[in-house]
Amino acid sequence: MNVSVDKLERFTQQTLQMAGLSDDDARLTADLLVLTDTWGVFTHGTKNLRGYIRRLRGGGIRAAAKPRVVGEGPAWAMVDADSAIGMVGSSFAMRVAMAKARAAGVGYVGVRNSCHFGAAGCYTAMAAADGLIGVAMANDTPSVVVPGARRAVLGSNPFSFAIPTGEPHPILLDIATSAVAGGKVFTAAALGKKIPDNWIVDSEGLPTTDPKIFPRSAALLPMAGHKGSGLAVFIEALSGIVTGASIAAQVLSWSFDEASSPTGHGAAFLAIDVGQMMGANELHSRMAELIRQIREAPRAKGVDRLYVPGEMEWERRERALRDGIELPDDVLAPLRLLAGESGLEW
Amino acid sequence: MNVSVDKLERFTQQTLQMAGLSDDDARLTADLLVLTDTWGVFTHGTKNLRGYIRRLRGGGIRAAAKPRVVGEGPAWAMVDADSAIGMVGSSFAMRVAMAKARAAGVGYVGVRNSCHFGAAGCYTAMAAADGLIGVAMANDTPSVVVPGARRAVLGSNPFSFAIPTGEPHPILLDIATSAVAGGKVFTAAALGKKIPDNWIVDSEGLPTTDPKIFPRSAALLPMAGHKGSGLAVFIEALSGIVTGASIAAQVLSWSFDEASSPTGHGAAFLAIDVGQMMGANELHSRMAELIRQIREAPRAKGVDRLYVPGEMEWERRERALRDGIELPDDVLAPLRLLAGESGLEW
Repeated sequence: MNVSVDKLERFTQQTLQMAGLSDDDARLTADLLVLTDTWGVFTHGTKNLRGYIRRLRGGGIRAAAKPRVVGEGPAWAMVDADSAIGMVGSSFAMRVAMAKARAAGVGYVGVRNSCHFGAAGCYTAMAAADGLIGVAMANDTPSVVVPGARRAVLGSNPFSFAIPTGEPHPILLDIATSAVAGGKVFTAAALGKKIPDNWIVDSEGLPTTDPKIFPRSAALLPMAGHKGSGLAVFIEALSGIVTGASIAAQVLSWSFDEASSPTGHGAAFLAIDVGQMMGANELHSRMAELIRQIREAPRAKGVDRLYVPGEMEWERRERALRDGIELPDDVLAPLRLLAGESGLEW
Repeated sequence: MNVSVDKLERFTQQTLQMAGLSDDDARLTADLLVLTDTWGVFTHGTKNLRGYIRRLRGGGIRAAAKPRVVGEGPAWAMVDADSAIGMVGSSFAMRVAMAKARAAGVGYVGVRNSCHFGAAGCYTAMAAADGLIGVAMANDTPSVVVPGARRAVLGSNPFSFAIPTGEPHPILLDIATSAVAGGKVFTAAALGKKIPDNWIVDSEGLPTTDPKIFPRSAALLPMAGHKGSGLAVFIEALSGIVTGASIAAQVLSWSFDEASSPTGHGAAFLAIDVGQMMGANELHSRMAELIRQIREAPRAKGVDRLYVPGEMEWERRERALRDGIELPDDVLAPLRLLAGESGLEW
């Protein structure tokens, strides 16, 4: 079903306001969830709105939360997000990181008492739109084994960066450190398909091609084995350890655990003000050289075009703003339920 | 052949001094190359000594180089490494990053006119030994395709982090963003073995299991596809772009290109002083909780023990310090040649 960006934003904002968010917080959250949908990253956009609202009503996400800085130095700050909805606490934290970067060149901000923050790329895009390099990461409830384990130990701990380029959009990467998203395993199961043997392990910790046992008797593998698992440890340290947040197994699931319990997520944001290091013009012309080397590289047989990170997503967004978003059924279903529950027309 | 750590350090230092390095620079470089060998990371240790000395004699690495800070702010600095041997310029830069972190909480230092810096983990270990979180990365001459290309576009751009734990050794990860190291492809070719189809692409950009065509008609694949490739772009930006270093294809090969030409590598170092954020004791006890969750996770069938990143390498080092290093033939061969060329006994 095709929905206009405006309409989806208004619906999202309205339901969040009905759940107790302030106008500003509801608008900010709606903006980021719909931004994510326009990128085509439907796993992290308005699909999750009903789940967030369930937690808002349950109290595990606090509608009236006021994220605040609880410790700081010249180039860092720690934020207690007060169990705000993830988008509100994380936007606040990235803004603090950006201000620190403006003052000191670099700003690192850790967050505790956060919640699922949606797409990490929302926050790095925010930094890049202001001319800064942005980095965002978060821990999560375990869904991924470490090499040699048969149960999930770490979250799919996401990592994003964005770099201003002088083009209309920054280079932007937003990845999970799991081999694949759990959603891809569910899709394969629904379609009755087998999966590659490096996506999940079974209850004995052995690779399997059967998606139907996930997640009850299976766990995701890390991307690139020990490499991705090691990066997940790094992300856990910066977002879960140094921040005073819950650590790995202590983090609750925002979607499955009791809606009245704060999840205890941690997150971390880094901003770098390249402007004071080499100036925006030189950054842009040097990024243009890197982009040229990537785009103009000789292509593999059958490949029409080479992309830089984020380019496909920004093009999808341009189309969505012009033609509306084609929402998949698994996004529409919870939105329709939510409309009914909220007494709104969908 | 078994060699004592002391002997290998003395030999390395002596040959570097004969090539014109100061006593201090030779000792520092020898320490780091042998540290790398004790970890069992033989691809990045004294195996490369003869190549570095060839460049020192050719002038592409400047023996009398004096790395210096050429720009700085409260939480950052840019270093011109003056084409010093990579270990000297990089150690200097990490020390500056550590000083910035002590002052501001976080320190980011970029380096231009660097050279191949060996194992990235040498520098993050340095930060962690001083109680700081350390991050190190570098660009390199292209050896890895981007998704959809049939020629190498980016280097195997390494990434390392280290985190103090309160145990004798930090958690330490040191990875390339290629699917595998080129050395593994050479080994398979030498043994007449096939390789998995996600290691390299052939001259048409298609996956192949034939290692013999590498590197003449093949290039490495990135780790985890677009994810690892995106991380390599991030590393290129922080170490190659923002620093004013050579960019991707502009970087020369330290081992194959003309020994009289500086390679133009870039590098980047980050240090975080967690001490001023939460204190060392709390960091250590929280890291202990994460380590416990990893080590005590249920093990897969056939697995005896779960490791945290770096643990295997630190245990190898303990053994090497006690029993000597068992140097493989591909490390011994160039060292023996170098001994002959230098008029030293091996």
